[in-house]
Amino acid sequence: MPDEFTVTPWEVKGKVDYDKLIVQFGTQKITEELKQRIKNLAGDLHVMLRRNVFFSHRDLDLVLNDYEKSKGFFLYTGRAPSLGMHIGHLIPFIFTKWLQEKFNANLYIEITDDEKYMRNPEFTLDQTRSWAYDNILDIIAVGFNPDKTFIFQDTEYIRNMYPITVKIAKKLTFSEVRATFGLDASSNIGLIFYPALQIAPTMFEKKRCLIPAGIDQDPYWRLQRDIAESLGYYKAAQIHSKFLPPLTGPEGKMSSSNPETAIYLVDDPKTVERKIMKYAFSGGQPTIELHRKYGGNPEIDVPFQWLYYFFEEDDNRIKEIEEEYRSGKMLTGELKQILIDKLNNFLEEHRRRREEAKELVHVFKYDGKLAKQMWEKIHE
Amino acid sequence: MPDEFTVTPWEVKGKVDYDKLIVQFGTQKITEELKQRIKNLAGDLHVMLRRNVFFSHRDLDLVLNDYEKSKGFFLYTGRAPSLGMHIGHLIPFIFTKWLQEKFNANLYIEITDDEKYMRNPEFTLDQTRSWAYDNILDIIAVGFNPDKTFIFQDTEYIRNMYPITVKIAKKLTFSEVRATFGLDASSNIGLIFYPALQIAPTMFEKKRCLIPAGIDQDPYWRLQRDIAESLGYYKAAQIHSKFLPPLTGPEGKMSSSNPETAIYLVDDPKTVERKIMKYAFSGGQPTIELHRKYGGNPEIDVPFQWLYYFFEEDDNRIKEIEEEYRSGKMLTGELKQILIDKLNNFLEEHRRRREEAKELVHVFKYDGKLAKQMWEKIHE
Repeated sequence: MPDEFTVTPWEVKGKVDYDKLIVQFGTQKITEELKQRIKNLAGDLHVMLRRNVFFSHRDLDLVLNDYEKSKGFFLYTGRAPSLGMHIGHLIPFIFTKWLQEKFNANLYIEITDDEKYMRNPEFTLDQTRSWAYDNILDIIAVGFNPDKTFIFQDTEYIRNMYPITVKIAKKLTFSEVRATFGLDASSNIGLIFYPALQIAPTMFEKKRCLIPAGIDQDPYWRLQRDIAESLGYYKAAQIHSKFLPPLTGPEGKMSSSNPETAIYLVDDPKTVERKIMKYAFSGGQPTIELHRKYGGNPEIDVPFQWLYYFFEEDDNRIKEIEEEYRSGKMLTGELKQILIDKLNNFLEEHRRRREEAKELVHVFKYDGKLAKQMWEKIHE
Repeated sequence: MPDEFTVTPWEVKGKVDYDKLIVQFGTQKITEELKQRIKNLAGDLHVMLRRNVFFSHRDLDLVLNDYEKSKGFFLYTGRAPSLGMHIGHLIPFIFTKWLQEKFNANLYIEITDDEKYMRNPEFTLDQTRSWAYDNILDIIAVGFNPDKTFIFQDTEYIRNMYPITVKIAKKLTFSEVRATFGLDASSNIGLIFYPALQIAPTMFEKKRCLIPAGIDQDPYWRLQRDIAESLGYYKAAQIHSKFLPPLTGPEGKMSSSNPETAIYLVDDPKTVERKIMKYAFSGGQPTIELHRKYGGNPEIDVPFQWLYYFFEEDDNRIKEIEEEYRSGKMLTGELKQILIDKLNNFLEEHRRRREEAKELVHVFKYDGKLAKQMWEKIHE
């Protein structure tokens, strides 16, 4: 029987069975024991760990070993710049910020203005660089430590990482990257080279690198894990999240090409209200009477899922909401309103911090403590 | 009937019929009229033009038009660093120097330390960079204008040329570069990307770029000519040379993997003498008696060819040598001795200038007038 879902780095389709995916991808489940270990070291457990939004890993246990031995580790994530970021884009950054704070780790954020330009025939390099600036504001607004975070754009930082990139490139054949990155002979040669640039930051330090990302990104890092040790570096460790479901239904992934599937960071309170009320897929019943009688289904209800994934951090409160909704006591409109309020509070705060971020771009990119060190370093 | 020779960027086999090659490659012959035009503009004609060592071109007439209209042009050549350069490697540089001098043109010399490293499984990047330094000394020794020449290594200058390189890369598919560069699916992704980096310097100025090189390099530049105008630049013009025959015979090309086929720039006088006497392929007769009777054949005699290509610049003297050799008056040993003396004089002078070049590396790479401008420029 064929799988009823597909997860590749460029496509998520169907209702994902995350337990099956762990087996398919050969990753490890984040067990209760591992969570307890994280909690002991970090002092608490992020809501996305408590609720298994981050549910799978590779070598996270080894990362924790290194941390316990005071060897430490570093964090790496990235962003392909786009016209506007949505809530789904921010989720991994929010979790990464928590990891940085709790484990006092350096963080490298690669902004792939080159790849984004080469990926889409219509985009100009000026466009992707201007999106890079905008996206960097949103990323800084998450609240990373400016002394321990380096945000860099490929087109600017290339000289510093080119030697290690060339070493990585020499170890990867077209055959190897073709399937993983969805390329073929009609792909342009820049996209074919790009995997080496994506791998380079995993070798910025001679420590273990931990990558928080959607599980769909895992195949990319398998290539890194195949070659890292032969270059004298560690296999990249990963911590994988599920996908925040699109507004329009519990399957697949939010997509920038369908604006109604997502809440954008620039969406004003009215837009948020309208989108949630109009598009958010509901697990409720068609009429109030039926809803009171049969109750709603939180498992497929997107507003509930969003609250559960992140926006309602209080474990007692989310349980209460779940019970009230399931019993029919809470109506779909009421549930949606809770999410609308949470989202609008979140976005208001985000935009305030985004304004402040304008003064901080040069710190994260050039003048901060880590940034300065990184501009003086040629990665070999 | 199959061709009896093969010319590709990575292989030259058989006795090359250069007239046929012009037809095969679709290039233009350098006619007597064109030579006269060059002579009028330059004041004289380089020996390699007089003797048709440079025999073919693309758009050289347009380059001269631009020069006449005071628009000017620039020169571009390069070198994949190797352990030691031989005489054959120096020939295009010597001719390029003449062009620079006569036409007062900027010259860009790309040192592809990255490509060389990625090409050969055994080489380390440290090796190719140290060869780069050595080769740069040999190149500087040719006597380029330090104010108008910029020598750059890919691994160092990448940041400045990366944006234009990315734009080029976006226009070239794997299918397109595969055949031209002799790649396949088992090629590493760095080599696949490299053609974009080789093309980038043809877009360093908004003028026509003239590339002096062996005719075997022509296919590379066809890719450039396909895409240059769509990026707002000129199709690269070229001036093509024949191959200086290997010592060991009139066919093929000198090869670094067979040291006896070439004279290296470090070969001392005794080595030069020994190699020429022992390996240089002769068009003479097996015995002195037969030679006096039937004479030698300068068409296939490598020492004569080397004198003709470059080392005996005096047109009267070379004619005299040819006649004496053909008539049997000049013996093979005598002809070889003429070449040995010429070569040893040339190499002695070269090594003197190479010593001086050590003080000039920073000028050509970083501090010279053109070099300084280039480090301040990001090529988009």
